[in-house]
Amino acid sequence: MRLAVIEGDGIGREVIPAAVEVLDAFGLEFEKVPLEIGYARWERTGTAMSEEDMEIIKSCNAVLFGAVTTVPDPGYKSVLLTIRKELDLYANVRPVKPLSGVVGVSGRSDFDFIIVRENTEGLYSGIEEIGHDLSWTKRVITRKGSERISEYACELAKKRSGKLTIVHKSNVLKSDKLFLDVCRETASSYGVEYGDMLVDSMAYSLIMHPEKYDVVVTTNLFGDILSDMCAALVGSLGLVPSANIGKKYAFFEPVHGSAPDIAGKGISNPLAAILCVKMLLEWMGKPEARLIDAAIADLLQKKIITPDLGGRASTAEVGNAVAKYI
Amino acid sequence: MRLAVIEGDGIGREVIPAAVEVLDAFGLEFEKVPLEIGYARWERTGTAMSEEDMEIIKSCNAVLFGAVTTVPDPGYKSVLLTIRKELDLYANVRPVKPLSGVVGVSGRSDFDFIIVRENTEGLYSGIEEIGHDLSWTKRVITRKGSERISEYACELAKKRSGKLTIVHKSNVLKSDKLFLDVCRETASSYGVEYGDMLVDSMAYSLIMHPEKYDVVVTTNLFGDILSDMCAALVGSLGLVPSANIGKKYAFFEPVHGSAPDIAGKGISNPLAAILCVKMLLEWMGKPEARLIDAAIADLLQKKIITPDLGGRASTAEVGNAVAKYI
Ligand SMILES: CC(C)[C@H](C(=O)O)[C@@H](O)C(=O)O
Ligand SMILES: CC(C)[C@H](C(=O)O)[C@@H](O)C(=O)O
Repeated sequence: MRLAVIEGDGIGREVIPAAVEVLDAFGLEFEKVPLEIGYARWERTGTAMSEEDMEIIKSCNAVLFGAVTTVPDPGYKSVLLTIRKELDLYANVRPVKPLSGVVGVSGRSDFDFIIVRENTEGLYSGIEEIGHDLSWTKRVITRKGSERISEYACELAKKRSGKLTIVHKSNVLKSDKLFLDVCRETASSYGVEYGDMLVDSMAYSLIMHPEKYDVVVTTNLFGDILSDMCAALVGSLGLVPSANIGKKYAFFEPVHGSAPDIAGKGISNPLAAILCVKMLLEWMGKPEARLIDAAIADLLQKKIITPDLGGRASTAEVGNAVAKYI
Repeated sequence: MRLAVIEGDGIGREVIPAAVEVLDAFGLEFEKVPLEIGYARWERTGTAMSEEDMEIIKSCNAVLFGAVTTVPDPGYKSVLLTIRKELDLYANVRPVKPLSGVVGVSGRSDFDFIIVRENTEGLYSGIEEIGHDLSWTKRVITRKGSERISEYACELAKKRSGKLTIVHKSNVLKSDKLFLDVCRETASSYGVEYGDMLVDSMAYSLIMHPEKYDVVVTTNLFGDILSDMCAALVGSLGLVPSANIGKKYAFFEPVHGSAPDIAGKGISNPLAAILCVKMLLEWMGKPEARLIDAAIADLLQKKIITPDLGGRASTAEVGNAVAKYI
C-alpha cells in the first residue's frame, strides 16, 4: 500500500500531520510518499504540481490530501480538479453524520446520510468559451457517467438501509432526464428503493428533514453545493471528510479549505482530516476504521477539542489523543 | 392598474383568493383579470396556457400567481418559465426575513436579506440537446444579462444598508468570471460596498451566518437553490413570497408549489401569497404595503394561524383576519 501524502497549503500542513499520526497508530503497512504540491509551491516555482508529481501519485494506491489554496489567477490550474481527472475519481463521497456532543445548526442529531456526487462531468466538463459579451459552459451528462455513479450509490445503499434519493433538476434541464432515468434503472436493477427530488426542494428538505435521507446521488455541482450546505447540519465545515473514489485510486480530503486566516497558529481542527483516515481504512476494507469514531467520541466527551468547538486543545494535541486511544 | 390573477392548481386556488381579499382591503383601484391557467386546464383542454391568455397577460401591468403543478410530460411546457420569458422578467427577488414568533431551523431571527436571482439565462437558456448516451445544456452568461441584474441589485442595496454579495462559481466556471466582473463593475459605479462568495461556501454560510448578508445577487439556478434553502431559515417554504420583475411587468408568486397533498382542505397557509401582495404594493410605490407586516405580526401573536404553524385557522380565516386588520 503506497499512500501519497499531500499537505498542501495553510492548515493542510497542520491537520495532515495529525491525521498521519492517527494512521500510524494502527500499525498497518504503509509506504508514505510525501509530495509538496500547491499554491506555495506555485509561488516559488511557477508550478503547483509537475507531471513528475502526477506520475508519483499514479504509482500510489491512494492519496491523503490537506488543502490547496485556490486563486483566481487563470494561469493557476486547480490541483484538485487535475488530480480528480487524471485518476478518474468519479465518485465524490461525503458522509453527513453528527458527532456526539457537537450541535449543528438545527440542533438535531437524528440523521446519518451520505452524499454521492458525480465527480467528472456536469458543469465541470471544462467545455466553455469566454467572450466579452457572452460566456458559456456546457453541462454534460453521459449515460456512462450516470451509470457508474448510480452503481456506486446503489452498492452503498445496499450496504446501508437501502434507500436512494436521486437529486436533479429535470423540470428545467432536459439533460437531467438522462441522469434521472439512468439512476432509476440502476436502482431498479439493484433492487434498491429509490425516490427523486428536485435540487431546490432538496436543499430545503435536507436542512428541514435530514433524517429522511440515506444515500443521496446527484450531479457534480449540485453535490458540491449540497454537501457544503450540509456541513451546517454537522456544525462546522471543519468536521466533514470526503473521499474521491475511482476504479483504481482513491483520494481523501477534508472538505474545509486551507483557511489562511487561522493557518500557522496550530489551532485548526484536525477531526475532518482524521475522519479522512477513517474513510481510507474503510476503503481498504479494514473494520478497525470504526475505532476512530470511538476515539473521537471519547475526545469530545473529555473536551479535548480545538477552539472552533469551544475547547483549548491544539491541532497536535487532538491528533495525539486520537492516536493514543487507538 | 390591470392585475392578472392566476390561481393555477392545488393550493393556488385557496391562497390566491385569500391574498385578493387582502389586496381589496386596501381600497385601491385595480382591474382584476382572472385567468384559468395551469395543469388542470391542460388536462382538460390540452393547453396549459393559450396565446390569447398570453396576450391578456401582456395587456395587464402585473400578475398575481398561485402555483401550477409541474409534470415531467415533455409535451407540457412550464407556464412559469414561459411567462418569465415572454414578459422578460429578469429579476427574481426573494426576501428572506423572519416572521415574529415563527422559529426557523436555526432558531435565530437576526437576519433580513434579499436574494436577487438572474431570471432569464444561465442554465435556463433552453439551449440543450438530448441524446441516448449524452445530453447537454448550455449555461449562458451575458454581459447585458449580468449588467441589468446587478443594476437591479445595486439599486436595492442603495435603498437598504448598501451591502452586496455576489455569488458565483468562477473557480470552476470560467463563464462566471463574466458575471463576477460585471457585478463588481456595477457595484463600483453605484458606490455599493460588495464582496463575493463561491456558491458552495455561500450555501454553508447562509445557513450558519444569515445575519451577515443583505442583498445577494446570483445567477439563475444558484438563486433557485439558495432561495429554497433559505426558506428553512424562515421556518417554512409556506412563508416565502417572490417577485419576478421586468422593465415593464411584474409577477408575484409564493415560493411554495401547488402542494397536491393538502389541496382542497382549506388549511393551506396564505401568508406567502399575502406577502406577495405586499411586494406588489411596494413595486407600485405604495408605502401602505408595510401594513401587511403589522397585520401578520398581529395574527401571529393572536395565533390566528394555519396548522402548518401549529394553529387551527383555515386559509380563509387567515386572509379574512389580515384584511380586517387593514
Ligand atoms: C475547490 C473546488 C474546485 C472544489 C469543487 O468545486 O469541486 C471544492 O469546492 C470541493 O467541493 O471539493
Ligand atoms: C418550477 C420551476 C421551473 C421554478 C424554477 O426552477 O425557477 C421554481 O423552482 C422557482 O424557483 O420558481
